[in-house]
Amino acid sequence: MTTAHEYAKANSQQFEAQLVDLLRIKSISTLPECKDDVQQAAEWVAADMRRIGLTTVEILPTGGHPVVYGEWLGAGEGAKTLLVYGHYDVQPAVKADGWDNEPFDPVIHDGKIWARGSSDDKGQMLAHLKATEALLANGGKLPINIKFLIEGEEEIGSKNLGKFVVENRDKLKADVCVISDSGMKTIDQPVIDYSTRGLMYLDFEVQGPKQDLHSGGYGGIVHNPAQAMAEILAQLHNPDGSVNVPGFYDDVLMMSAEERAELRKHAPPQATWEAATGVPQFWGEADYDLHERIGGRPTLEINGFASGFYGEGSKTVLPAKALAKISCRLVPNQDPARIFELVKAQLLKLTPPTVRSEVHLQASAFPAVMDTHSPAMTAASKAYEQGWGKSPIYERGGGTLPIIADFQRQLGNLPVILMGIGLVSDGAHGPNENFTLEMFHKGIDTAIYFYEELGK
Amino acid sequence: MTTAHEYAKANSQQFEAQLVDLLRIKSISTLPECKDDVQQAAEWVAADMRRIGLTTVEILPTGGHPVVYGEWLGAGEGAKTLLVYGHYDVQPAVKADGWDNEPFDPVIHDGKIWARGSSDDKGQMLAHLKATEALLANGGKLPINIKFLIEGEEEIGSKNLGKFVVENRDKLKADVCVISDSGMKTIDQPVIDYSTRGLMYLDFEVQGPKQDLHSGGYGGIVHNPAQAMAEILAQLHNPDGSVNVPGFYDDVLMMSAEERAELRKHAPPQATWEAATGVPQFWGEADYDLHERIGGRPTLEINGFASGFYGEGSKTVLPAKALAKISCRLVPNQDPARIFELVKAQLLKLTPPTVRSEVHLQASAFPAVMDTHSPAMTAASKAYEQGWGKSPIYERGGGTLPIIADFQRQLGNLPVILMGIGLVSDGAHGPNENFTLEMFHKGIDTAIYFYEELGK
Repeated sequence: MTTAHEYAKANSQQFEAQLVDLLRIKSISTLPECKDDVQQAAEWVAADMRRIGLTTVEILPTGGHPVVYGEWLGAGEGAKTLLVYGHYDVQPAVKADGWDNEPFDPVIHDGKIWARGSSDDKGQMLAHLKATEALLANGGKLPINIKFLIEGEEEIGSKNLGKFVVENRDKLKADVCVISDSGMKTIDQPVIDYSTRGLMYLDFEVQGPKQDLHSGGYGGIVHNPAQAMAEILAQLHNPDGSVNVPGFYDDVLMMSAEERAELRKHAPPQATWEAATGVPQFWGEADYDLHERIGGRPTLEINGFASGFYGEGSKTVLPAKALAKISCRLVPNQDPARIFELVKAQLLKLTPPTVRSEVHLQASAFPAVMDTHSPAMTAASKAYEQGWGKSPIYERGGGTLPIIADFQRQLGNLPVILMGIGLVSDGAHGPNENFTLEMFHKGIDTAIYFYEELGK
Repeated sequence: MTTAHEYAKANSQQFEAQLVDLLRIKSISTLPECKDDVQQAAEWVAADMRRIGLTTVEILPTGGHPVVYGEWLGAGEGAKTLLVYGHYDVQPAVKADGWDNEPFDPVIHDGKIWARGSSDDKGQMLAHLKATEALLANGGKLPINIKFLIEGEEEIGSKNLGKFVVENRDKLKADVCVISDSGMKTIDQPVIDYSTRGLMYLDFEVQGPKQDLHSGGYGGIVHNPAQAMAEILAQLHNPDGSVNVPGFYDDVLMMSAEERAELRKHAPPQATWEAATGVPQFWGEADYDLHERIGGRPTLEINGFASGFYGEGSKTVLPAKALAKISCRLVPNQDPARIFELVKAQLLKLTPPTVRSEVHLQASAFPAVMDTHSPAMTAASKAYEQGWGKSPIYERGGGTLPIIADFQRQLGNLPVILMGIGLVSDGAHGPNENFTLEMFHKGIDTAIYFYEELGK
């Protein structure tokens, strides 16, 4: 064990306290009223970077929330340079969503820290800052040059980061990129995701009468927009679970038989999915098993809808309009802009002449695939063997990391390693999000080994 | 003109000011947080009854919001007794629903008073108190005995009033009942509704996964409850606009050819419906014209639904559940309890095995039909001729007055007259509800004439 690992062990409680501190900041990027909190989280990250010894630390403006950049280039020009990407923003959360504690008042019990952003991505991102701190505090140097790009808009589609990357190509130049923002199925088996899905997120609004009407006075002569919305949404899937949008699958790069066989080898037992979801029966494309569908197939989901009155009690209103949030997870080689046009065209085509409808794009991101045979991937595998005691398996990730495609396209096909140290059962985006402390500390150790492997 | 009419004219501005006063009280019966406001409205009504000279005024408790009862029996045992029914509670309203003014901060312009409850039913109900005041203030007597039953739960299905009526049969004994809580198409043509529709209102909840999930981590393997809800709701109507619930139409008393011909005679032009709704195309049962469908046919409406995230921005959540509010307007001889069982059975049958669902009854009311040839109806017709200058037409009402069926069944088939003095375009239950002041004053005059006709 090196002194960096000893330092990390000796400071484990302090690292946890720092994470609690960061988790108290309500950095919900999608809510305008949280703008100051998002800024505060950026400042927290920048302050920690300065404290641990990064030599250049900047809070850089974008068209939206700022990027925090920090670097330590003391390994010299001959050494490899690692770019660490993470995000300090989080998804919305209120206790009423079903939390046992206030989502921004972290609690620790059962070996886990419970708070919004604990796993996605404050905890995973912080593991890299703490690994860097451990190395710098013990010998004052790292075996590699390191650059941190920690953004504040990942949960809203990283909409300003693509431009930032283009404008800062030189600053961000690196040999490898590592991102810890994904999950394993179990604590015992490390996973490296070699693909991420793209995203297309839209708002769909159906307008019925010009204003809310009395359901007794007008019901039966006006097409209720909530009903029209239901009729449209019900047609977005075929009975076999596939998406009913003409052209939707045109550009999908089919998985090879070899890849599918490899994925099936590591498929978790059905009981794992049952415990995580609690559904009475699974649903979806029958031609693919559950494990393949997550990551390997594109989807269309209703993230929410609202119309009329839905509070306690009764209100006999015939609503004026209905709103739905719809998103698609995309796989290579689907283009989010083309998918938006296809879904929009289908929504408008399915809109009956008795109502009016509108479609607005909210966010989009490209899917990405990573080479599992690169030297960086080998270094990551060795790091897991030492930090986790087990070789990682390679899987397709179901989530979206908008920045990967930008890094690949703008930074000379930069190899990206998804060194996730969360669990898929962490409840990211849902209530009771949590991060297992053992994984936090193993993640810090694994990051140290990874930096060392890269430096060899 | 009698002195009562002169008094009403001389006091018209004061009557309007009193209505404004009552409209300031936020007596939303469905919202628990408005309980004190509802009580305050009851006290306002009771205080006005005492002030104008009713001899017994009581605020009587029920299982929910109280009933205000007031009487003047000075005409003696030989005289007829009129029971006036009205309600002091209102539908929910917030400015964000699309109001031009705060819904509980009444404004007067364009000859109308704009506020929640102005037409439904505070304004219409108050016309009877003011007619009574005008008669009592001029001669100290009425030509009839009068009893007022003003309740506070009409907008939540009058759920405690049926029991109240049963327990107070003697107190409520009367020869005729009058209710002003409905609307005319135009100010020039008075209307007496001879039927009201029943109501069955339920909550429908679809449960998918045990908690909100990350749409990237689980989308495609779990049946999204918002999507499942949409699929179920979309099947509740047939392509011809009829309700797809087995047995739904079994007990419907079909309108006769004569009645349909009579209704068609008074059907408003299409332009009237277009102006009121603003929809690009009408919808519904093609076998019946728009006018017949309102009141003559039963309906099933989605009054609202909600699932997942529907705020500003984006949240890539796979929701745990979806909620819908569904109500049916019923016609004779449909029984709300039977219709609830039929709709519930259909909702559960349409629920796929991939999700769970629950159905809960919120409110119910029987439909009613009134005899258009009763002596009371003739008196009402004569009152309109004098107060409005035109004979009323007879129509089917689309709305629901739960109490009518109770009065008919519990009070010896008491004849009920629906002397509506609102307009269907008043925006009851929607934003910018308003009441035309000319109709308020004509309504007071017509009520005075009605009491006089009944006393002859």
